[in-house]
This record gives sequence, C-alpha cells and structure tokens, in this order.
Amino acid sequence: MKPFNDTLELLMRHRSIRRFADTPVTEEQLEAIVGAAQMASTSSNVQAYSVIAVTDPGRKERLAALAGNQAYIRECPVFLVWCADLYRLREVTSAHMAPEASHIDTTENLIVATVDAALAAQNAAVAAESLGLGIVYIGGVRNDIAAFSEALELPELVYPVFGMCVGTPAQEPVLRPRLPLQSVLHRERYSAQETVERAAAYDETTRAYMRERSGGTSDTPWSVTMAHRLAQPARMQMKEFLQSKGFMKR
Amino acid sequence: MKPFNDTLELLMRHRSIRRFADTPVTEEQLEAIVGAAQMASTSSNVQAYSVIAVTDPGRKERLAALAGNQAYIRECPVFLVWCADLYRLREVTSAHMAPEASHIDTTENLIVATVDAALAAQNAAVAAESLGLGIVYIGGVRNDIAAFSEALELPELVYPVFGMCVGTPAQEPVLRPRLPLQSVLHRERYSAQETVERAAAYDETTRAYMRERSGGTSDTPWSVTMAHRLAQPARMQMKEFLQSKGFMKR
Repeated sequence: MKPFNDTLELLMRHRSIRRFADTPVTEEQLEAIVGAAQMASTSSNVQAYSVIAVTDPGRKERLAALAGNQAYIRECPVFLVWCADLYRLREVTSAHMAPEASHIDTTENLIVATVDAALAAQNAAVAAESLGLGIVYIGGVRNDIAAFSEALELPELVYPVFGMCVGTPAQEPVLRPRLPLQSVLHRERYSAQETVERAAAYDETTRAYMRERSGGTSDTPWSVTMAHRLAQPARMQMKEFLQSKGFMKR
Repeated sequence: MKPFNDTLELLMRHRSIRRFADTPVTEEQLEAIVGAAQMASTSSNVQAYSVIAVTDPGRKERLAALAGNQAYIRECPVFLVWCADLYRLREVTSAHMAPEASHIDTTENLIVATVDAALAAQNAAVAAESLGLGIVYIGGVRNDIAAFSEALELPELVYPVFGMCVGTPAQEPVLRPRLPLQSVLHRERYSAQETVERAAAYDETTRAYMRERSGGTSDTPWSVTMAHRLAQPARMQMKEFLQSKGFMKR
C-alpha cells in the first residue's frame, strides 16, 4: 500500500492552470499564500527573495506584453512576480560593513537567492492549490528581462526569476505525464546510462499525451520537442543582464 | 478568519530537523516523496533535475566530510542530493541535433535547471513532512563542489544544488521567525524603501529568538549575522566550477 494523505494527493494532482474565473483572490488568501511561502527553508536565513503582487489591470497588461503576451497573465486576478533579492540584504548590512568587504556579488549568492525564491514560490503554489486556487509559472518574465525589471522598478541585486498567475481555475486540464521515476531518481551515485535509457520510454508516453491533447494532429515525442527548444537561441542576454544588476560578478 | 486547511497548517509549522531517530525511510515513502517532487512545475517540461538517494553509511560519511561535517548527514537514514541536470537533456536530444546547434550552455539554462531542482525539492520536503518525516536542506554540498560531484560521479552539465537529510524527527525545534510579511510582499511594484524599513523590526525579533535559543548567551540581530556572513569569502569557486561542467558558458 502506498503512503497516502491529503497533502500528497494535492501534490500529485497538480496541473498548470491557464484559464481563470472572474473571481478575485482575497487579501486573506494572498497573505496565507505568501505566509506559507515565507516558511519554506532559506539558506542560512538570508531570505533572499521578494514577491510582487500585481493586480492593477494596466500593469498586468504591460507585464503580459513583455512576458510572451499570454492571455492568462491579463486574466488572472493576481500575478505574482518572484524575485531573487540580494538588495534587501545589502541595505540591512550596510550599517555594519564597508561595501568593499562584502561578497554579495558572487555566483554562489546568485544561486542562493535564486533557490530561495524558488523554494518560497513552490510553497506558495502548494498553499494556493490547497485553497482551491490554480497557478501557472511564467518563465516569460525573462524574455525581455531588462524592460520587465524596469516596469516593476526592480533595484540593483534584484531579478525576476519567474511569474505566477493565481486564480480560481476555469478549466480542468489532464495531468501531464512525467519522466519515469527511475530516470530522475538515482541510487547512491549518478547513473548516467540508466537516466538516459529510462527517459527513452518517455518518448512514447509523450507521443500518446500529445496525440490526445491535440486531437490527433500532433504526436511529437519529448526528445524532439526538447531538441527544438535547445536549437533556439533563448534569453541570450541573461548573463549580461545579471551582471549589470550586480549579480555573479565573480 | 484566516484561510485554513491541513496542508496550510503543515506548511506553516515547518522547521528544519537536525536530529533523527534510528528509523529507516521505507522504499514506499521514498517513492512517494520523489513522485510528489516530479509533479512540481518544470520549465517547458524540461525536467532538468535529478535526485540521488544516498543510504550507504560509508558514502554518507564521505559526503558529510565534504559538506561541512554535520553529524545529521551521517545520522539521517536517507540523504537526498538534488542536482540541476542538463546532461539527460543533452543526451536525449543528441540524436536530433548537432551539438554545435544547441544552446544548452547558456546562463538562462543554468537558471532553468537550478529552479527545476528547487521546485521539485520543495515538493519533496512538503511530501516528507506530510508523512511525519523531517528534513533539513544542506547547502554545504557546494563547499567543495568539485570533490562532492566526483564522489557522486556527476557527469558534465550536472551540479549538486543542495542536499536534503530526510528521516524521523528526534527533536522538536521551535519555529524560526521570518521577516515581516510586508518586507517580502510588495504591491504592484518593488518598494525599495519599505522592504528595508520593515526588515528593521526583524532585528528585534531575531535578538529575542537568539536569546531564547542560546539560553541568554547570544542576542545577535539578523542584520549583524548577515553582515558577518557576507564578509566571509564563501564558495568562491562556483563560477569556475559551473563553467568547467559546461554551464553558463555564455
């Protein structure tokens, strides 16, 4: 018998939601979601992230245009932008140290802040779903990351890692199948051969899934979709942008 | 009345666990935990992460020595190492594209893989806690990241983002207070002044917490702890290491 409880069931039935009902997310729901996010683990208690809740229609419109123009960014009642944030840390420590003594600009701290933002956001996603809401992550915030950052007045040492649409689901998508467990779970050491071999079976799984989702017009296997993705130059300005914001200078 | 349910309650009572009972994590629990991790969102379905479950005492001993020598890495029944993984993606796409056509080595894809690993890991943390288990994240896997990677036979385009001790809690730590909600939650745009001002109150909160935890021998406020942290050169080899593994070459 498999281990089971309501929380596991909730985690196992996650689907990204891209159509939302015209129902607001209440202030209490928002605070419960962000409160849960705050309880996620954080590296040495740095809490190196911020989240911006955008509800103003004009601003959502502008952000949507910059992030791939997906209708659901406009339509969701709350668009959360999750940011890696070392700015707050720099400011609160400035009274206790000379700026040149700080190692805030390392690649290590970019990773720390990015991970902190992601752990908090995933707790928020779970919290939102526990309240009957639906979410979708938006990587498109990095499409034109300079303009997007400017639209939110992000200071130095802050960058938008991803967005998250939150609202009441107005669709019931099927579960998207994942890689076989044994392709992502290794034992004792990394198993290079097994991870690749087990992933091969996933091509058949994704062909069937695509066939069903497209009504028979597409059956592209995962490995081909991934090759198309890697063939495209995407967000090539990230390194330069992050360095211009004070991240990963060394 | 605040929104409330069992999952929210679980998220709100998270504490890192650093002492574990001598009880194994069963294979079924492990598969439930990693199965829940797999259902987290992933950027364009790349699933660019792997997790290595280490239970062998000799190997845990070696990894503990490399990762800060914390006793709980040795003592926990399962030590999970969460890796950003673009290796699997490179291998499965190699039949469909020339290596030189691939943009796998961008900073964008480093972020994608790091975020994928973190979202999956946080679902795993929540799943483990829902089963009555406790966890602690281990950033120390990045202390000597080259030796740690070698000990796990990590190939090119894979790096250990963090570890996670999992087991039955043998302690009941108090909740660690977080920054005021209004310091991390911004409205419509980033509020540089408010995030810093609100964080000031946290210095008092952390002094009281430290005083209680240390039995009165310490009352260092957060901003001072953070300044000490930033003053130390930490994991300065990250950029060079990541590039040597094929990440963020551009």
